[in-house]
Amino acid sequence: MNLIVTIPEFRDARANLFGTVGFVPTMGALHRGHMSLVKKSNQLCDFTVVSVFVNPAQFAAGEDLSTYPRTLDSDLKLLSNYNVECVFAPTSETMYNTDFSTFVDENSLSSGLESLSRPHFFKGVSTIIAKLFNIIQPSHAFFGEKDAQQLRVIQRIVENLNFPIQIIPGPVVREENGLAMSSRNEYLNKEERSRAGILYSALLKTQKQITDGERSVKKIIDLVRKTLHSEPLAKVDYISIVNDKTLIEVQGDVSGDVLVSLAVYFSDIRLIDNITIRFPE
Amino acid sequence: MNLIVTIPEFRDARANLFGTVGFVPTMGALHRGHMSLVKKSNQLCDFTVVSVFVNPAQFAAGEDLSTYPRTLDSDLKLLSNYNVECVFAPTSETMYNTDFSTFVDENSLSSGLESLSRPHFFKGVSTIIAKLFNIIQPSHAFFGEKDAQQLRVIQRIVENLNFPIQIIPGPVVREENGLAMSSRNEYLNKEERSRAGILYSALLKTQKQITDGERSVKKIIDLVRKTLHSEPLAKVDYISIVNDKTLIEVQGDVSGDVLVSLAVYFSDIRLIDNITIRFPE
Repeated sequence: MNLIVTIPEFRDARANLFGTVGFVPTMGALHRGHMSLVKKSNQLCDFTVVSVFVNPAQFAAGEDLSTYPRTLDSDLKLLSNYNVECVFAPTSETMYNTDFSTFVDENSLSSGLESLSRPHFFKGVSTIIAKLFNIIQPSHAFFGEKDAQQLRVIQRIVENLNFPIQIIPGPVVREENGLAMSSRNEYLNKEERSRAGILYSALLKTQKQITDGERSVKKIIDLVRKTLHSEPLAKVDYISIVNDKTLIEVQGDVSGDVLVSLAVYFSDIRLIDNITIRFPE
Repeated sequence: MNLIVTIPEFRDARANLFGTVGFVPTMGALHRGHMSLVKKSNQLCDFTVVSVFVNPAQFAAGEDLSTYPRTLDSDLKLLSNYNVECVFAPTSETMYNTDFSTFVDENSLSSGLESLSRPHFFKGVSTIIAKLFNIIQPSHAFFGEKDAQQLRVIQRIVENLNFPIQIIPGPVVREENGLAMSSRNEYLNKEERSRAGILYSALLKTQKQITDGERSVKKIIDLVRKTLHSEPLAKVDYISIVNDKTLIEVQGDVSGDVLVSLAVYFSDIRLIDNITIRFPE
């Protein structure tokens, strides 16, 4: 497993990979969620490339860019258990030189949900992903379903800009109490981390409620809110039910496949989770 | 020479091209300007691909999208004189499906000059070029210096988004009277076409004036304006002197390499031309 930090070096290494190349983009601070994607890539592709880059362009002022966990040594150790051809870990200066003025911007699926609290997020993600796709030149790229909106935005970008890349989603990996794996979970103290299982409990309740026949968006959201409010440490940012394809808010009654998603603060740590509920009309 | 109109068919053909692939993107209505780029690609690359696509996204309402000359049969005939592996001529529906919501936007070099009269132009060009790059996957791409700002914007996008593509500029090809070759010249009547040589005359006068020692931007622009005003059919849109690299307007005295560019109407036909003047400080 090679650690590569410059683009020319990566291009040299890439030129020697003949076959399918699976790409797992990460911001490091790797956990079992990332590893499930690496595993998937190992199963599907001849070679696997992992990037580790905390992308400044997707953080707004006041967000956690400077404190985001950077743990390259332990990340490399974790990855060495898998079949990883190389790890691409460039510096910010390598990825954004002084004359940087080009952005990729998806303007439909990127609106609403996460963008309301994180206005720079999707433009930043879209731009860095386009850059990484052009550097890594993978045949497949792997993204976790925990970031449901991000996954859909990237699928749309690949389709719209004709990247010759297959996007493979990986299911959310959870801690024992149901908390979705996230590098940001490291910010939580022990009590918060244990109580943060409430996000998934609320989603499971919603799923049961809908399976049991409830269709009123208002009633479903009320139950989610009630469940989350039962946990005094949790402060709701949003609870949303959108069409799973268009990400447009469902009005009145749910119908077709829906994405139920949450953003919840524990202290100043923002956690997100979601569940897709599919049911025939 | 294959004519290919769908993306999957192109991808199949592309998979069989081993070696360097030169790409000449065009909107058709081919002339000697385009052919000089095809020739250059033939010299530099193992294979040459030409696209013919009138890109709706780069035309604003009221521009000449519907009347832009479409002459595929004669274009193919012209190209058959060169070593062209295939011509990619997709429909608008192929390139922009109903769920199109992703744009590439360069926001520094794209401002000023052409963008003032054509506000949609560079976002449209940047987006289609990213799409075509991802479909064609060329090693080299060829762009004419007649569209000086476009060339610089594309060079910036390739650098910023890390497309693994070398951009090769081709010098302006001119008609006998100096008029820069352009598909839009076909719109001019015989008299206009003959008189439109005034754009290049004005640029050559400027070049001489600067070579002779004039440095005042005001005086240089005044001379260009006077020259253009000597032609009653010509209506000036802009005359501009910018830094050749940054495209920022030069204030006071010219220094370093500058790009002198013009946009001039003959009836309602908008013609552009430019000259780069390099001189040591």
